[in-house]
Formats: sequence, structure tokens, C-alpha cells
Amino acid sequence: MPDYNVGILGATGAVGQKFIRLLQDHPWFTIAALGASSRSAEKTYREAANWIEATAMPGTVADLVVRECEPSQFTGVDFVFSGLDSSVAGDVERTFAEAGIPVISNAKNFRTDPTVPLLIPEVNPDHIEMIGSQTFTKDGSGWIITNPNCVAVPLTTSLKPLFDTYGLESVILTSMQAVSGAGYPGVPSLDIMGNVVPLISGEEPKIHEEPLKLLGSLSGGTLTHADFPVQATATRVPVINGHLLSVTVGLHKKPGSADEVKELYRNWKSPIADLDLPSAPDYPIFYYDDERYPQPRLHADAENGMRTAVGRMRSSAVLDLSYIAMAHNTVRGAAGGAILNAELLVRREYL
Amino acid sequence: MPDYNVGILGATGAVGQKFIRLLQDHPWFTIAALGASSRSAEKTYREAANWIEATAMPGTVADLVVRECEPSQFTGVDFVFSGLDSSVAGDVERTFAEAGIPVISNAKNFRTDPTVPLLIPEVNPDHIEMIGSQTFTKDGSGWIITNPNCVAVPLTTSLKPLFDTYGLESVILTSMQAVSGAGYPGVPSLDIMGNVVPLISGEEPKIHEEPLKLLGSLSGGTLTHADFPVQATATRVPVINGHLLSVTVGLHKKPGSADEVKELYRNWKSPIADLDLPSAPDYPIFYYDDERYPQPRLHADAENGMRTAVGRMRSSAVLDLSYIAMAHNTVRGAAGGAILNAELLVRREYL
Amino acid sequence: MPDYNVGILGATGAVGQKFIRLLQDHPWFTIAALGASSRSAEKTYREAANWIEATAMPGTVADLVVRECEPSQFTGVDFVFSGLDSSVAGDVERTFAEAGIPVISNAKNFRTDPTVPLLIPEVNPDHIEMIGSQTFTKDGSGWIITNPNCVAVPLTTSLKPLFDTYGLESVILTSMQAVSGAGYPGVPSLDIMGNVVPLISGEEPKIHEEPLKLLGSLSGGTLTHADFPVQATATRVPVINGHLLSVTVGLHKKPGSADEVKELYRNWKSPIADLDLPSAPDYPIFYYDDERYPQPRLHADAENGMRTAVGRMRSSAVLDLSYIAMAHNTVRGAAGGAILNAELLVRREYL
Amino acid sequence: MPDYNVGILGATGAVGQKFIRLLQDHPWFTIAALGASSRSAEKTYREAANWIEATAMPGTVADLVVRECEPSQFTGVDFVFSGLDSSVAGDVERTFAEAGIPVISNAKNFRTDPTVPLLIPEVNPDHIEMIGSQTFTKDGSGWIITNPNCVAVPLTTSLKPLFDTYGLESVILTSMQAVSGAGYPGVPSLDIMGNVVPLISGEEPKIHEEPLKLLGSLSGGTLTHADFPVQATATRVPVINGHLLSVTVGLHKKPGSADEVKELYRNWKSPIADLDLPSAPDYPIFYYDDERYPQPRLHADAENGMRTAVGRMRSSAVLDLSYIAMAHNTVRGAAGGAILNAELLVRREYL
Repeated sequence: MPDYNVGILGATGAVGQKFIRLLQDHPWFTIAALGASSRSAEKTYREAANWIEATAMPGTVADLVVRECEPSQFTGVDFVFSGLDSSVAGDVERTFAEAGIPVISNAKNFRTDPTVPLLIPEVNPDHIEMIGSQTFTKDGSGWIITNPNCVAVPLTTSLKPLFDTYGLESVILTSMQAVSGAGYPGVPSLDIMGNVVPLISGEEPKIHEEPLKLLGSLSGGTLTHADFPVQATATRVPVINGHLLSVTVGLHKKPGSADEVKELYRNWKSPIADLDLPSAPDYPIFYYDDERYPQPRLHADAENGMRTAVGRMRSSAVLDLSYIAMAHNTVRGAAGGAILNAELLVRREYL
Repeated sequence: MPDYNVGILGATGAVGQKFIRLLQDHPWFTIAALGASSRSAEKTYREAANWIEATAMPGTVADLVVRECEPSQFTGVDFVFSGLDSSVAGDVERTFAEAGIPVISNAKNFRTDPTVPLLIPEVNPDHIEMIGSQTFTKDGSGWIITNPNCVAVPLTTSLKPLFDTYGLESVILTSMQAVSGAGYPGVPSLDIMGNVVPLISGEEPKIHEEPLKLLGSLSGGTLTHADFPVQATATRVPVINGHLLSVTVGLHKKPGSADEVKELYRNWKSPIADLDLPSAPDYPIFYYDDERYPQPRLHADAENGMRTAVGRMRSSAVLDLSYIAMAHNTVRGAAGGAILNAELLVRREYL
Repeated sequence: MPDYNVGILGATGAVGQKFIRLLQDHPWFTIAALGASSRSAEKTYREAANWIEATAMPGTVADLVVRECEPSQFTGVDFVFSGLDSSVAGDVERTFAEAGIPVISNAKNFRTDPTVPLLIPEVNPDHIEMIGSQTFTKDGSGWIITNPNCVAVPLTTSLKPLFDTYGLESVILTSMQAVSGAGYPGVPSLDIMGNVVPLISGEEPKIHEEPLKLLGSLSGGTLTHADFPVQATATRVPVINGHLLSVTVGLHKKPGSADEVKELYRNWKSPIADLDLPSAPDYPIFYYDDERYPQPRLHADAENGMRTAVGRMRSSAVLDLSYIAMAHNTVRGAAGGAILNAELLVRREYL
Repeated sequence: MPDYNVGILGATGAVGQKFIRLLQDHPWFTIAALGASSRSAEKTYREAANWIEATAMPGTVADLVVRECEPSQFTGVDFVFSGLDSSVAGDVERTFAEAGIPVISNAKNFRTDPTVPLLIPEVNPDHIEMIGSQTFTKDGSGWIITNPNCVAVPLTTSLKPLFDTYGLESVILTSMQAVSGAGYPGVPSLDIMGNVVPLISGEEPKIHEEPLKLLGSLSGGTLTHADFPVQATATRVPVINGHLLSVTVGLHKKPGSADEVKELYRNWKSPIADLDLPSAPDYPIFYYDDERYPQPRLHADAENGMRTAVGRMRSSAVLDLSYIAMAHNTVRGAAGGAILNAELLVRREYL
């Protein structure tokens, strides 16, 4: 069984806490070091963190002394997960990579870097090879890999079978996003209780661009992005966990029927299905026949929050197909996705 | 000042209660008779109704004795508003029309009848003429007019300036609908608290069809429906009042910019602006410059709930324009719309 | 390992579904028969039930054919759990007991019967003996046992250490109850979203009376109820699961300090701690030092929803102590409590 | 008609915004100056404020230039309302009073000052006289008056008839408080959606002490506080506006019945009933016969949010009476209460 010591950067924040909770009983990865801002450094994690997860803070983590986010403080870890805020992630992650410590990042800073893989293991596992073109260190020991925006994950995962089978012409979507996506303290209750906010600042450009990189094709070490327009309206709704998307797509080849597409989803096999990764769900795409589903409160936690749920597949009178997709935004769309990325990197012997 | 005695059919239901509240201090219309099922008949309204409005039941209405929904019980009223459930509205409304009592209906039963106007005064006031082709009575004294579905109202109102200026090619929308739209008891709290339900049974076909009738052109007494595809995904969200729509449209003529379209909305003049109808808002379409707006909790009640609010107008990478529309579903989208219909009918001397 | 075939009465309702979910992987009990109203009988459970639990319907249960709630349909089960509505539970449960089938009931009908134990294993395990005085069958093979109201459970559990140590003089409480306590469809969303309803019909008398039976003393087969006044205000709040109680108590002996009482809770040992019952939590009472806790959304699910959480213990300027108690109302306060009752009955060889 | 120019200190905060909205069409008071922190000074109010009220920012106010909170900037105003945060209110309010500008404050800083009246016009209008003992200026031109904590208002108002008629022995209450009470951004949505938080830091001591000052008796210029213990548990619930209290009281004289007490409330006459103050409600105490009432979402806005609603009056098995009280926390419990204080001061010729 693989056995790694891992560090967590941004350990006191909402994403960092989720990393800690999800790694609590991980069979391969042991939390060996926690990093946060200098305000938290030198305190025990118990003192430094305002713990917001519903399960208790793991005892072994509670007693760890928080360190500053500097590579010299993280000797002895095999790699780090980064849950840093984007305001600092760029510099810190670069410093770690340059020091020869691989960085599995959830931040957006390096997502558009042409040498940094933006990775969903079930969608584009071969993009891992881009790591070879990174130049953070001479010997290649330090590198960065990122996971996508929390809407881009269920969107691109649900698009993948359509993209491969029919070719994508265009995508229009409206997202209804949970408050946990904004971190803590995040969305004020006065803004969202009994309400919908039809803007999430800075969100839509990520939804427009990340699917094109994720569905891009790698050839001779160079990634060519996919080429179709995506147009998103990102809204916030009073939901705790689970981003729900209403998606309409135009396709190059026309499916015979919506039922044909449902079968496509039901029979879809993930490219990592046989790798036996600890965090991989049995159904990375799960199609619900009940037209009332998926719903965030009922289904976001299915298979430990690692599924993309799909439902209501039907023909569209304007483009070709319409459907609903949903995934747990802070698990599949953030920390859980990063952990699955690390597991794939282990199997592929990058770690 | 016009002075009419009105009856309310379905007076104990959620829509009926909204009629009562909105008519409470109406300058033209006085509630003279209340109709409900035989279970309620012969009781005072105070006894019969489980009052759910936030303001107190009007004292004059509380003491009225509820009647059965039969024309013989409604002698002395000039016309009736119908807030009946669609399971009974068809037969009852027909009976009233045949008895020579005009029916201003909120039910869906006659909306698709080719002789019955589906009316939004600011959108298609000339459709009133269709009343002339109705045959409920020989002398034309009894007739029926309807208001649209609560999503169709803000959708079609916000489409109207685009339809007239650029021509509509296609419409894709996702609605986020308030729980009050399902009446009382309506949506169970266990279904919707902290959740989104991505299906509202029976809703989407109405959204697909009603805008085409509303934007149809009347010629020689015959209505030709507008001709463009509409594709809707209707969802329920934990909001009390106010349906919010994320709309993307394709246009025949291309606007120069989103700003041009914002100006179009700001300068749009309602065809009934000069009629001085008591329930008509000053801004039947109100464009919000703040990109975070409109929001149901903050803006559904503006101008007594009679506005359609619009915001976030921008170019779409897939079709031509995307925007947000929102209106109070049980006021503008139901009882308030019906009252405005009646006011227009008074001014046009149908009443 | 014990091995029992169990039936569930009222299997399609909210409590019945919770029984099914909690028994899904139970080491001792196998669901062998499901009973519901004649409307559901003869259908598979998949067809008959509107499944509202967040986890998927267990496959083995989905294919069971639902039966009418008659003893002749339940031959082969060792006992039944009853999640029946109180409108029918009285007659049905009696019929089963008379037919020699033990009934572990969650309904209120027999709670006040002087021969029927009202049981919380950690509070009054010895009350089981009352079964011996039941006369449903001549040979004692059929009997009934009940679990308390969902507020009475955390209330009485949290009172137990105080009752034993200091003696109770009086109890005043305000409950803030979750919507799941009203079943499905239960509380309309229009009633409770963004609101508090300060009345739960019929609830307060149960809260006043059940603690006195639970804390009663059994002597020579006769139960003498405890004797102190309880005064409750039961309110409904927009919470999914978890009833939270604000409790103030007067005591016969005065504690030295609130800290002394916190220690009492921390050191309290459950009378069933050594029985190794599968559903028994490690901490039937868990005291939270953080004054912001317990909270229903964060803590109701702790230890599979079987804990009573306590916090904010402090002196009261009016009576003696004030504190917060909280438990999962449909698990610890209903189906989970009934299952623990059955486990105790197994260990005590009543089953 | 009285005619005053008023200033608002803390104008950009949540309380300041509420002052602006409530004063928008006030018949006596015209907003002439707005004060905020130096960060906002020199900007127009439109630029400086993140407007969170549901109604539009009044146009006349939007164009006012915000000033620093210094008396020299407020020449020309007759008095100021203070919605300042308590972290700065103490110094600023003192400075204004010393400069001869009367301060009508909503902050807590001077509430316990023995020379500063803590005022609810319907409860203790005579306490105004304490102003005479203030020494901020030699000529008495500058002084401070405060309104109570938002729970203390409905609590003390509802206690007043009991205090006068029966004498109060003790009070136990649990408050369920709306999120608007914490200002903006205030309570994070992740903390309160679908949840109850059983602690509001710093709130309970105010609830314990303020009623005793409010019900104190003034004799020879000296205030003797009332003398009975109050014990509060303050909780936060997912409600927008309206604090609801579950109150149990012990009385010196025993009422004949709960009905007698209901009559007492129904017949209670406010001591300011004949003064015709613009913001005074017709029913400062309104008793609801329907046991499901009052509810914050339905009743907080009654009479412009200026009522204290009472319901569920009944005998208590532990003390003497139990009941529910509720009032709009940011109107009656804050800005609206301060405005009513100012109106009384006008009528009593202190302004």
C-alpha cells in the first residue's frame, strides 16, 4: 500500500479544513504538516482554526503546530495539497514547486498556465504528462497540478460523454450554487436567506474557459484547447452544499433520442475505473431516472460527495439536449477532487 | 370614477386570498360576493378561510357569507375574478360566462382557447378584441379573459421590447421559482429547505406555449401565434415570493451592444402608460444597473409587486443576449395581473 | 450473534422509512416483512413508497411486497417495529400483541398505559419488567413497548443525572423543533421558511407527562411516577433534523457550581454502557464546552444521530441551572430509539 | 407641525440605513446631514453606502455628501440620531452632547449611565426627566437618550402591564432572534441556514439588566431600578426580521386566570396614546387570539414594525404565566424606537 506524508497549505481555511476531514482516514496519505498565515503559525491547529466542519476535528491534527507556508518548514513531506486563497496561492505554490515539493492545488492561479495540468481524473487523465514540460526545478522534482472550478467539474464531467460521442457545438448553462462555495464567513445570511443572487463575481469566465482546457487534446506535449462557446449564468441559492446546473447543449452529430443519451451515461466507463483509487466513486457519473432528481440536499453526499449526478435528459427545442447536473462543490469540486488527483499521480508514479 | 361590484370565485384558496388583499382598498372595485366549494358555502369567510396573507383579513370581507360557485348566487355582481383551481375552473367559468357574467380568470383552463384572450396589458392590449368572437352568450354579455402563467408573465414582458425591435429567433431559460407559486399547503418544507428541485410538474409546456400566443398578431379577428422555439427548465428554490429567470435569446437583427439593449429597456414605453390604471406600475419593466440585481427578496415587492425587473443584460457567446428577469409570482404573475386586466377592460368599455 | 427477522408496520411513512434505513446493515435484525395501509398492500415497496431518505432505498427492501398490517400476514417475524400513525396505531398494535407478536412501538397510543414501558435504555432500563404485567396474551408472548416523544428523549436523558444527583423540583423549557418531526408532507414551506411557529399542536402535554413516567420508580411491579412540574413551550423552526431545547431547572439539592454539573455530565456512565448494544452511542450524553454548541445542523448526526448533546450549563438567576440539550428527533427521538429498545430487549432475553 | 433638521451618525451601517428609510417621509424630521467613518467621508451617500434595504435609496439622501462624525460638521442640525457601532459610539456621542447637540442613540454605551434615560415611550415616558441631571453642557443644551436592546423592548413592553397589575417576581425567557439583529454582513449563512445557534455573545446580560432600569421608579431625580431576577437564553434562528420570545413569569399577586390577563393586554392603554406621535402604533401591544401567532414572518411588519405582538398567554405549572412576545428587531427594537423617542421629546419640548 502506498504511504505518503502530506502537507496542507491554507490549513485553517474552509478548503483546508475539508482536506483535513477527507484525509482523516485515508489509506495512503498521512497529514504530517499544516501551513497557514503567520497569524496562525506557532499555534496548535486546535488554537489556530475556527473549525466549521460538522464532524469533530481529528485529534491527531488538533495537536499539530501550524507552520508558515515556506518550503523550509515542510521538509519531510512528500507533497502538499494547497487550499490557499488565490490572493497568495500564486507565489506560495511557485515557491514550493521551485523547492522541489510537488503541489496539488485547488487554487485558480495556475489553472490557465499552459504547462500546468487542469485535471479531472475521469475526464483527462492523460493531461498529467504536461508536468514533464514544467520548469520549476531542473530535475523535475517540483511541479504543480490543479483541479478545476467547482462548476467546471460537474459541467465538464457531464459533457465528456457527449463530447466524445457527438462532438460539442455550444453550451448554455445556469448554475445554482451553494453558499459553501464562497468559503467562511462567505455569504452573509441577509443576502441569501429566502433569496437568489443572480451574480457570482468572477465565476462565469472560469466556467467559460476551463472546460475547453479540460477537453483539450494533448499532442507532442502541446495542449490544444477544445473549441466551442460556453455561456454561463452563475447564481447563488440558499443551499449548503451542492452546485446544480441547468445545461443546454448543441451537438455536431445528433443523437437518435434522449433515451439513447441516457444509455450513454449509464454505460459510460471512467478511464480510471480499473485503477482502484481510494477516493474514486463507483459511479463518477450517476444518471437519475426520477425526473425530480438530482437535488443537492438529497444527493450531494452520495458516494462521499465524489459523484457527478445527472438527470432530466431531454431534447431541447432550441439546441439539441437539456439536462441537470449536480455535484458536491467542496468535495468533488474542490478538496476531494484534489485528493483524487493525487491518487492518480501516485498510480502513474509521479508521486 | 368607475364603480363595480365584483365577485371572487375560489375565494378561500391562496389566489383568492391574494385577490381579496389586493382589492382591499381598490378605488374602482368592491368585493360584493365570495364563492368557494360547497364545503365552505354558508359559512362566513372568517370561518371558511385559513387566512395565510401576512396582513389581517379585511373586516368587511370577514363577515361575508361564502356562496357556492353558481351564477344564481352571484346576481348583483358586475363581473367575477376567478382564482379557482384548474380541476374545477373549466366548468365553473364556462357556466358563469354562459350566464352573462364576465370572468377575469387566473386559471389555465381557457388560456389556449382560440377565442379567449391571454392578456398582459403592457404586452398585447389589442388582444382584448378577441372577446368579440366568443359565443358563451348570444348577446356577448358573458365572456372570459385569462392572465398567463406566472413565469410567462415576466418572460414575455421582458421579451416584448426585443421581439418588437430585433425579432425573436429562439429562447432558452431556466426559472428559479418561489414556493408561493404552488399554493397552500403547496411545497413541503422537507422538499425545499436548503435545496433546489429541478422539476415543476406541468410547468414547462406552459412556458413554451404562452409567450407565442401573447406575442401573436391579431388580424381580422384571427390570432396568429408568434413562431420561435422556447425551451425552459423550471426549478423550485427556497424563496417565498418572486420567480427569477435566467434567459438567453437569439435575435433576427443583431443589437449593436448590450448597452443599446439596456437603453431600449430604459426607454421602453408601455402601451397602457397613459390610461392611468390604478394597478399599473410606473415601470412595468425596470432595468437594474447593479449586476447583483434583481433579487426576489429585495425587489419582488417593488411598486406593489407589479413590476417585471430586468438586469444583467449582456452578449451571449452562444445565442445573442443573456439577462435576468424577475417578477412577483402571485401578484404580477397571478391576482395582480388579473386585476390590471380588469382595469384595462373597464377603460376599453368591455366592463 | 443474535439473529432476528423483523417486520415494520407503517413502512411507507416517514418513520417507517427511517426504520428501514437504520436497519439496512443491522448486525442482528433482518427486515423480513413490511406492512402499510391497504392502499399500498400487494405493491412492491419500490412502487408503494415515496422514498424521502437521502440515501438510496436498500435494494433488498425495494423488492419486498408490502402487506396489510394484520398478524396473519406477519408469520415468520420475531417481532415488529411500529412506525404507524397514532390514528391507527392503537388498534393495530393491540392486534399484533394479542396475536403473540411483540411490538416495539414509536407511536404515542400506549405510552401512558400503566403496563406498557416507556423506555429510554440509558434512563430507565429496569422498566422493561413492566412487560410482565401485560395481558395481551395468556402466555406473555405478545407485548408492547414504546419509546418517548422526540422532545421527551433529550429532555429526560439530560435531566437524568440531575434527577439522580440533586433531585428535580421543577423544569421550564422552550423547544425549537425541526420540521422532520412533523413527518411528510408535514410542515408547508410557506409556514416555516424564515419563520418560527410558536405552537406545535398536542406536543406540550406529552413533554409535561412523559419525563415523569420515564423517571418513575418501579416497585413490586408498580410504577410510581416522578413528581415535579414541567412547563414547555414547543415551537417549530426552519431546521431539517434536530430538536434543540433551552432548559431551566430547579433542584432540591444545590450544586456547588455549574462546573460541578459539567463534570457530572462528563463522568456520567450509562447503565447500559457494558451491554455492547449495536446502536448504543459511546456518549449517550455528550457535553460541549464550546458555548456556541450544540447546534442541530452540526451535531444532530454525531454518533449516527444517537447522542443527546448538552451545552451552555450555567446557573440561573431564577431557578438553579440553565442549559441547552439537543438530539436528532427522527433517530434518537424515534426510530433509532426504538431499535435501541429492541437491542436491550434482546440482551435482557425478552426477545 | 414641528419641523426639525436631523443628522444621522453611522449612516452607512445597517441601523443607519434603517433610520434613513424610516425617516424618508417623516412629517417632522428632515435628514440634513449624514455622518460615517473617515473612509466614507467626502463621498456621496450613494457612493459610500452598500445599501441593503429592500426599498430604493431615497434620492434626496443619495446625493448628500457624507461627513466625519464631528460636531463641527453638523452645524445646522437640531439633533442627531446615532446608529454608531458601540466600538466608537461612546466617544462620538459624548463629543456631540458636549457640543450642545442632543443625541438620540441606539447604541448600548450610555444605556447603563445613571443620568441617561433608557426609554420606551409606552413604558417609562417620565424617565425623560433624567435628562435634567446630565452635565455634558453647562446650559443643558447637549444631552443623550438611548433606546433599549432589541430583545429588551418586546420583553419589557409585554411585562409592563403585568408589572403594574400583579408585580413581577421573576422572569425566564428564551429568545429566538433574527439575523438582521447582527447587522451586515453579520451572521454567515453557513452558520445559520437550517440551524439554531444557542448563543449570542454579550446579549444575555443586556436582557437581564435593561428591563430593571426601564421599569425603575424615578423619585427626586433618582432612578431606583426594579428588583426581580431575569434569566435569558438568547438564540439565533434563520429568520430575517422579528425577535420572538418565549417568556415565563412569576408574579406577586396571582391573576384569576389566563383570560383575565388576556383582557388586561387587550384593554391596556399606552401612556402616550393621546399624544398623536407620528410613529406610534395604534396597538403598541397587540394580543393574538390565534394560538399559532404571533410569527415573525407574518407579523413583524404590522403597523410599520412598531408593535409588540403577544400571544399564547397561559398558566405555567412552574411559575405563574407563560406567553409569546415578538417585535421587529430593527424597527421597534432599534431605529423605529429611537425615532419614537425623538417624537416624544418633541412633544415634551426637550427638542
